[in-house]
Amino acid sequence: MSIPVTKSNLYREIHEQPEVLHRVLTQENYVIEEIAKAIGKLDINHLVIAARGTSDNAGRYAQYVLGARNQMLVTLATPSLYTIYKRPPWVKNTMVVGISQSGKSPDIVEVLAEARRQRVITAVFTNDPDSDLADQGDLVVNLSAGQETAVAATKTYTAELAVIASLSNWLGKPSKRHDLPNVLPEAVQKTLALNDAVAQIAPRYRYMQHSVIIGRGFNYATAFELALKLKELTYTIVEPYSSADFLHGPLAMINEGFPVIMVAPTGKLDQEMEAFVQTLKSQRAEIIGISDNLALLDQVRIPLALPVSLAEWLSPITAIVPGQLFAMHLAHTRDYNVDAPRSIRKVTETR
Amino acid sequence: MSIPVTKSNLYREIHEQPEVLHRVLTQENYVIEEIAKAIGKLDINHLVIAARGTSDNAGRYAQYVLGARNQMLVTLATPSLYTIYKRPPWVKNTMVVGISQSGKSPDIVEVLAEARRQRVITAVFTNDPDSDLADQGDLVVNLSAGQETAVAATKTYTAELAVIASLSNWLGKPSKRHDLPNVLPEAVQKTLALNDAVAQIAPRYRYMQHSVIIGRGFNYATAFELALKLKELTYTIVEPYSSADFLHGPLAMINEGFPVIMVAPTGKLDQEMEAFVQTLKSQRAEIIGISDNLALLDQVRIPLALPVSLAEWLSPITAIVPGQLFAMHLAHTRDYNVDAPRSIRKVTETR
Repeated sequence: MSIPVTKSNLYREIHEQPEVLHRVLTQENYVIEEIAKAIGKLDINHLVIAARGTSDNAGRYAQYVLGARNQMLVTLATPSLYTIYKRPPWVKNTMVVGISQSGKSPDIVEVLAEARRQRVITAVFTNDPDSDLADQGDLVVNLSAGQETAVAATKTYTAELAVIASLSNWLGKPSKRHDLPNVLPEAVQKTLALNDAVAQIAPRYRYMQHSVIIGRGFNYATAFELALKLKELTYTIVEPYSSADFLHGPLAMINEGFPVIMVAPTGKLDQEMEAFVQTLKSQRAEIIGISDNLALLDQVRIPLALPVSLAEWLSPITAIVPGQLFAMHLAHTRDYNVDAPRSIRKVTETR
Repeated sequence: MSIPVTKSNLYREIHEQPEVLHRVLTQENYVIEEIAKAIGKLDINHLVIAARGTSDNAGRYAQYVLGARNQMLVTLATPSLYTIYKRPPWVKNTMVVGISQSGKSPDIVEVLAEARRQRVITAVFTNDPDSDLADQGDLVVNLSAGQETAVAATKTYTAELAVIASLSNWLGKPSKRHDLPNVLPEAVQKTLALNDAVAQIAPRYRYMQHSVIIGRGFNYATAFELALKLKELTYTIVEPYSSADFLHGPLAMINEGFPVIMVAPTGKLDQEMEAFVQTLKSQRAEIIGISDNLALLDQVRIPLALPVSLAEWLSPITAIVPGQLFAMHLAHTRDYNVDAPRSIRKVTETR
């Protein structure tokens, strides 16, 4: 038997998210504004983001948020071009951004170092402002999450999303700015109330061997991050998809009882997501829904109702929370160590 | 019982690949050269590629080939920014490329149409030069694959890769050009000789429920495309990974007997791939190796030896072939219809 899950570092770190969000959004507000000013001054409309694992999922969020709200083009970097093939692409007229909890992965450091050789401005979002990666940043945002001890990243992920949301805020018109420090910590706090409901449904999935997570647009990132948490913590085979890509082939996998998690907060995708639920039901899939859309929740087998309805572009910051809780409780149900999954370490250094 | 697999459209189309490659590389050579000239003349160092499914995997190949050989930055487009959020990013100083077998998916058409509204040059690679997508291309490459009848795309995929390789050739120095029409069709022809060996190993995986495919660099695309074929044709849960990303979390999933397919043609990744095999073996995974690296093949449970050693940047065009054959034979072993998988259609229209 394992220790009570409430005594784990993972549980504590998931529950620290409201205070971390408040801290990063207030203490780092100034440097995020500086990044927005630099982008405006240099007339940059294109970011290149280098990241791995959880931080790469934050990069995916940036693709959609900075695209939809600020019409910026965001490219996710391909580090092997730098480190394996030693033929980095030209990145002129861009800002190159490195995102990493530890700031230690040599391949991500190298993407930023090359940007500097090309005399391109760089920014770094990291939880360690003394790291090698931070050394390569012209502007450095400290994620201010405090030490993250559990191997599965949670509070640093939502802190990264908050920094990106705040950057989008600063890049937009003053009239369209949201008061993030007042909105986000409270919304995440309220979402954490789902903990008990999630703990109750976890045993149903004790023997689930695989799953698919569907998200699209802003929440494409949430699908990736939830899939990663389930893989790391519960060793389940879980693949994330956009609902559009899923129809181009993978739909063939779905048969009776196939577990699908839909991440579908309200917004421009409501109609598509509701239709997608019907497509899945026609193949007799079992659906878990993470949403504040009551019409959708009404159609799924296991509804996880988000208690707060945020603007769609901010919804990934709350929508991942029930997923973090689900991965933790499912791992605990399976008597796995939620703080230290097998085979992996907190800091992974790849080249 | 199903019909003999050799009588299927899929079998025929897989085996047509040498002639299709020869056709597209000779007949379309001129227009591919025109695209390269336009890129040079407009001093473009950045492509935006819009595609779905199999064609998106060809786009992933372009990211690495045009990056490593031509130092171009390639961004994979996010169509929902155009069609759902109606806030397309600025794509100035780029060429926007649409890749689609059918040329019919409305979201891909919309990315190209918006590029034209922004007065950006466009190119289209499609098997239907009369399609809506082709109408949006300033330069249009006909994949020349002939009708593709099986739902799972094979010959159009390798034709797309060949067009991208040829574009890279034209963008590079004349002294570094490879004679693709003389090299690629013959290499694929020789690789097809693996058919019988693959048919023999397929029954071993009759009850395989999930798998992971590892590829990196140029063959990251191959991992994605092989995973897609296995999902479409055999309904197995299969997720593609770069070896680097896999170490950042998903490695935790691997336990005794977990089937992993490694796509590892010889090249700059040899050392990393050999070390990765050892990591997997320490977790007691079962490894299928697709490679011409004998040291690596010697270490895996099921070696599929590529009979031709191409330059690494061209290897994805042969390395996918045993994967196509494996997906086909495994589907047949399971008595599935290899030409018409359940639930999906040949042309998928998403917005």
